[in-house]
Amino acid sequence: MVKVGIVGATGYTGGELVRLLINHTKAEIKWLSSRSYASKKYATVYPNMFEIVDAVCLEDNMSELAEQVDVIFTATPQGYCASFIKEEILSKTKLIDLSADFRIKDVHVYEKWYGIKHQSPQFIAEAVYGLSEINRAQIQEARLVANPGCYTTCSILSVYPLAKEGLIDMSTLIIDAKSGTSGAGRGAKIDTLFCEVNENSKAYGVASHRHTPEIEEQLGYAANEKVRLSFTPHLLPMNRGILVTAYAGLKKDATAVEIAKVYQDHYKEEKFIRLLDYGVCPETKWVARSNYLDIGFKIDPRTKRIILMGAMDNLMKGAAGQAVQNMNLLFGFEEDEGLRLVPSFP
Amino acid sequence: MVKVGIVGATGYTGGELVRLLINHTKAEIKWLSSRSYASKKYATVYPNMFEIVDAVCLEDNMSELAEQVDVIFTATPQGYCASFIKEEILSKTKLIDLSADFRIKDVHVYEKWYGIKHQSPQFIAEAVYGLSEINRAQIQEARLVANPGCYTTCSILSVYPLAKEGLIDMSTLIIDAKSGTSGAGRGAKIDTLFCEVNENSKAYGVASHRHTPEIEEQLGYAANEKVRLSFTPHLLPMNRGILVTAYAGLKKDATAVEIAKVYQDHYKEEKFIRLLDYGVCPETKWVARSNYLDIGFKIDPRTKRIILMGAMDNLMKGAAGQAVQNMNLLFGFEEDEGLRLVPSFP
Amino acid sequence: MVKVGIVGATGYTGGELVRLLINHTKAEIKWLSSRSYASKKYATVYPNMFEIVDAVCLEDNMSELAEQVDVIFTATPQGYCASFIKEEILSKTKLIDLSADFRIKDVHVYEKWYGIKHQSPQFIAEAVYGLSEINRAQIQEARLVANPGCYTTCSILSVYPLAKEGLIDMSTLIIDAKSGTSGAGRGAKIDTLFCEVNENSKAYGVASHRHTPEIEEQLGYAANEKVRLSFTPHLLPMNRGILVTAYAGLKKDATAVEIAKVYQDHYKEEKFIRLLDYGVCPETKWVARSNYLDIGFKIDPRTKRIILMGAMDNLMKGAAGQAVQNMNLLFGFEEDEGLRLVPSFP
Amino acid sequence: MVKVGIVGATGYTGGELVRLLINHTKAEIKWLSSRSYASKKYATVYPNMFEIVDAVCLEDNMSELAEQVDVIFTATPQGYCASFIKEEILSKTKLIDLSADFRIKDVHVYEKWYGIKHQSPQFIAEAVYGLSEINRAQIQEARLVANPGCYTTCSILSVYPLAKEGLIDMSTLIIDAKSGTSGAGRGAKIDTLFCEVNENSKAYGVASHRHTPEIEEQLGYAANEKVRLSFTPHLLPMNRGILVTAYAGLKKDATAVEIAKVYQDHYKEEKFIRLLDYGVCPETKWVARSNYLDIGFKIDPRTKRIILMGAMDNLMKGAAGQAVQNMNLLFGFEEDEGLRLVPSFP
Repeated sequence: MVKVGIVGATGYTGGELVRLLINHTKAEIKWLSSRSYASKKYATVYPNMFEIVDAVCLEDNMSELAEQVDVIFTATPQGYCASFIKEEILSKTKLIDLSADFRIKDVHVYEKWYGIKHQSPQFIAEAVYGLSEINRAQIQEARLVANPGCYTTCSILSVYPLAKEGLIDMSTLIIDAKSGTSGAGRGAKIDTLFCEVNENSKAYGVASHRHTPEIEEQLGYAANEKVRLSFTPHLLPMNRGILVTAYAGLKKDATAVEIAKVYQDHYKEEKFIRLLDYGVCPETKWVARSNYLDIGFKIDPRTKRIILMGAMDNLMKGAAGQAVQNMNLLFGFEEDEGLRLVPSFP
Repeated sequence: MVKVGIVGATGYTGGELVRLLINHTKAEIKWLSSRSYASKKYATVYPNMFEIVDAVCLEDNMSELAEQVDVIFTATPQGYCASFIKEEILSKTKLIDLSADFRIKDVHVYEKWYGIKHQSPQFIAEAVYGLSEINRAQIQEARLVANPGCYTTCSILSVYPLAKEGLIDMSTLIIDAKSGTSGAGRGAKIDTLFCEVNENSKAYGVASHRHTPEIEEQLGYAANEKVRLSFTPHLLPMNRGILVTAYAGLKKDATAVEIAKVYQDHYKEEKFIRLLDYGVCPETKWVARSNYLDIGFKIDPRTKRIILMGAMDNLMKGAAGQAVQNMNLLFGFEEDEGLRLVPSFP
Repeated sequence: MVKVGIVGATGYTGGELVRLLINHTKAEIKWLSSRSYASKKYATVYPNMFEIVDAVCLEDNMSELAEQVDVIFTATPQGYCASFIKEEILSKTKLIDLSADFRIKDVHVYEKWYGIKHQSPQFIAEAVYGLSEINRAQIQEARLVANPGCYTTCSILSVYPLAKEGLIDMSTLIIDAKSGTSGAGRGAKIDTLFCEVNENSKAYGVASHRHTPEIEEQLGYAANEKVRLSFTPHLLPMNRGILVTAYAGLKKDATAVEIAKVYQDHYKEEKFIRLLDYGVCPETKWVARSNYLDIGFKIDPRTKRIILMGAMDNLMKGAAGQAVQNMNLLFGFEEDEGLRLVPSFP
Repeated sequence: MVKVGIVGATGYTGGELVRLLINHTKAEIKWLSSRSYASKKYATVYPNMFEIVDAVCLEDNMSELAEQVDVIFTATPQGYCASFIKEEILSKTKLIDLSADFRIKDVHVYEKWYGIKHQSPQFIAEAVYGLSEINRAQIQEARLVANPGCYTTCSILSVYPLAKEGLIDMSTLIIDAKSGTSGAGRGAKIDTLFCEVNENSKAYGVASHRHTPEIEEQLGYAANEKVRLSFTPHLLPMNRGILVTAYAGLKKDATAVEIAKVYQDHYKEEKFIRLLDYGVCPETKWVARSNYLDIGFKIDPRTKRIILMGAMDNLMKGAAGQAVQNMNLLFGFEEDEGLRLVPSFP
């Protein structure tokens, strides 16, 4: 059994990692840490785990943790993973970082968008961007996996095949994204109180959201050109789910059948990507609590644009599910071990 | 007192009309008709009206109605208003049609997007498009007002000043809109059941939604060119509210101050349009149950695009509120009579 | 115009007072205070008030406030009103306290249930319990009105006529209450985050909620006996609304007609109490954003119990609406001035 | 592998059965029938099953079905199972009926509360009431299992130990229950539209809900006396979850420790019942999408009542989960096979 440590175990993403790993047949949780709840029983923080998880939340002690486990998940705020990472740790254990610290290759871009100084830029080059469908081979060999962001996963995977095949004009790409509120975390803030979010919707971080450069970098690799796009996230009154609606000009006339074939060529072997029939719009409810990403598209001959749509669960394929998928790759397990969850409706 | 008849009084929009007119000091409801609930007490269909509205729902009888009232609101399905309208009626009473029958000047466009034959094309020319902020003078003289759609009101008013002043490249305009579920009406359908909508979001009518030509026509008048745009509506798990996020390329460099001045020049006298401070994103909760439309914008120097945002209540400024605003214009009342509702939060 | 000061203006109840008083024809807001947001523009805390309320939040200065206004509303935490009240203030201005400080006549009961020492017990005797339907005459003469709690208003008014007429066995009375989340206030707490409340329901404060002695005291006056009852509040995933389901043994066989007559005898002149037809269950949506309390009941011959149900808006009849109703009584205005709001649905 | 047929597979409960059985290691679905969607692909009715379930919905053909499968689940309206059941079927296959047809032993009680004539009363005696925790041994031997109702499961199991041990006065028992909207089914009805349920709560079926006699019968067996209780269901704006708050007079003084011991004695071996620490109130979110029932209680010395609280997922322990638990018993599988789902939060 692979021994696992989860740092930041009491956030929503940490909780989802715990939920997934409990039923993973080849991994066991050895260490749950939480600075906010250290020395509290985990099941008092998350009573869904009552009589399931008996552990007490520990302090963070990365050196000790590296001794005890085979892989560490860090579901922690930006900057935290970069603050403790060192060769000594990476030589003993694998590290899957769910923060943004090692996602962006250009440290100046990171520092500009996140507004913090990167504490360990020397590890950026080694880190593998953990989008399994794109970087599978490299992930298998990695020590340090940078687990993608929620918006970014949905955005990149929805657009990737068309960017790669040069079918869309990247300078016209606009991504309008909508997220459930669990993406905002479990911190006590007025903005995410029930009465503030319920019966409301809004855009935020317009032209300035930190997931923008991450999407641009990855789609830039695909398109083999520098990409500048518009990305606008919105907060919706639901717990889970991300919906991406992307708009791009088609470089040439392409039929739905041709576009569908491009997606098929890239994704037909992928267990977690479902390509919907033409004209079917993905809905977040149909992927909830699973690791699936559902993709649909529509060609608009009037405007010569294509509208791409992706739906997934932000805590699953957008965070914890993808992290477990990466762990499976790191250790040579079946890629969907522990992730064969059927979307739960309603 | 102006005597009012409401046809289709038991839909959500009809109900909102009733709510507004009860407190209108210069109008009184004389006739509530509903084909679904004819001969039922209105307050059994809408128990919020218990002890407030004593009326029984009547059958539609347009000739009789035209005799009895000074203005008719038709909150009815597409095609209905066009099926009964005739000179005899318009010579006796004013008509504010909340369906799409008289919104689009080119009957072929109407018939193509709506998929029905227009029964009374001879009245299309006369009808005034009831966007008070744009067509105030013509509305005051009208007999037949085509009350705009919910998505269209929010979309057009958010973009209008920039289209009019030639600041944006209309060929790049993309409108991503989000709506609460009351916009889908009170019909019993599986798609709008609580368990289907709650904890869900989706796009629908992609590249084919009927509000598209209406927005294109009105923005075409503003820009003085033929407009083709992408419009994508989304269904959100909330009762009320429309949020529009629009993207367009700026034709030339423009500062936030310059853009703000353009909006001010067009809207500063408007009672129902609130121009938010730069960088503030409108939220549907701040306008709920009022007739306000809140507008914000953000310039993105990286992409040379401007992102425009508008939020309003789909049943108010997007339907019943705007209809009452039009009635006020028709009869020379203060434009906000009956509409001085403070947005209700939470 | 009566000049009004609102202390604690940035809580949800404070916000509702502002909303109501803006449209009150005989009162005007002169002072908005908020310790959390002092010196901030009110409309930045509540952007629904943008371009409607121009005021800046002030510090609390009760002596100064008493000089400037005719009536003070305190929408503040328990203990605050008792901490500053003095004869000097009451001799200059009326005071409507929306906290519990002056609701309970026995100071020991207050101190035991609230766990704090009462700072001004000398004013308890003078304070009038502000349930307009029960204590109208005394309120008209009062200087200090103790505005009832939300659960208590709904519970007391739903049960009162039967308690008064001796129709139910008070020792069997059980009140199971359900509330929307705005009742928990606008403080940043994990328990009231969107993701914690949405898709959830729970009881809390079981056998220990502070509204219990308030209900017992008032129903004790009605029944003319000491009352001990079970009261259980529940938190529901909705913004507004309280629903009370009360159970009691009937002392003697009574028909629905007889029970209905008792309610009619007590409430038929009341503008804000609607007695539903027999068998109709009240729903919170039918009273939302109005000052109505809807009451229904059902007799169960199998158990010889009666089930009483009341629904109202916790921020309206349960807080701000009732406070304005009390202000109207204090100043001899029409009791529904500023409160003729039609319930808004959906 | 046990071969399974699901009749009524396109209701919410049917959908949940499918979700559970997909991951069951010892059962496989052989037949999905649906009268509403016969000959449609199941995954077009429930797109969460896209690429997971390939089957097409079949017509009901009970004789044919009995030939092909080892166990039939009927998730069908009242009266349907009784209309087709016969010895020929039961001799070939086991039958787990999720409707009420065989839950109540006295056919007159059934016919009175359900208002329909029972078509096969001759099988009532044989049917075993499928509350695994109470009737485990009989279920193991059964051919026909009457799967309990959602409200009834939560109500009975929460109260059972105290009824059995004679600790509460059964004549004082009052059950106030709250349910998510999935309990109302997937039929297209105005009452369960999003805009009607969202931001609303109400009681319904007061003193007349059909689950009443079922609870009374089972608790009567426990208490060994005829039981008459008050049961009031409420509809809440959430998809899933049932919360029961039950009130009863204690027959004698009992400490929390004594009460807890009674629960422990009955349930300590039960995998799906979690007894919360004293004073902890169960919440529906902590059991969502799992088969757990969480039970808590509070003694109120002031009223000498005990307040019992139970929370579970209405589609799981209240329907499909319990049905699979019963299937496991019928076939000698581990009782939690296919049911080791960790509650999913948020």
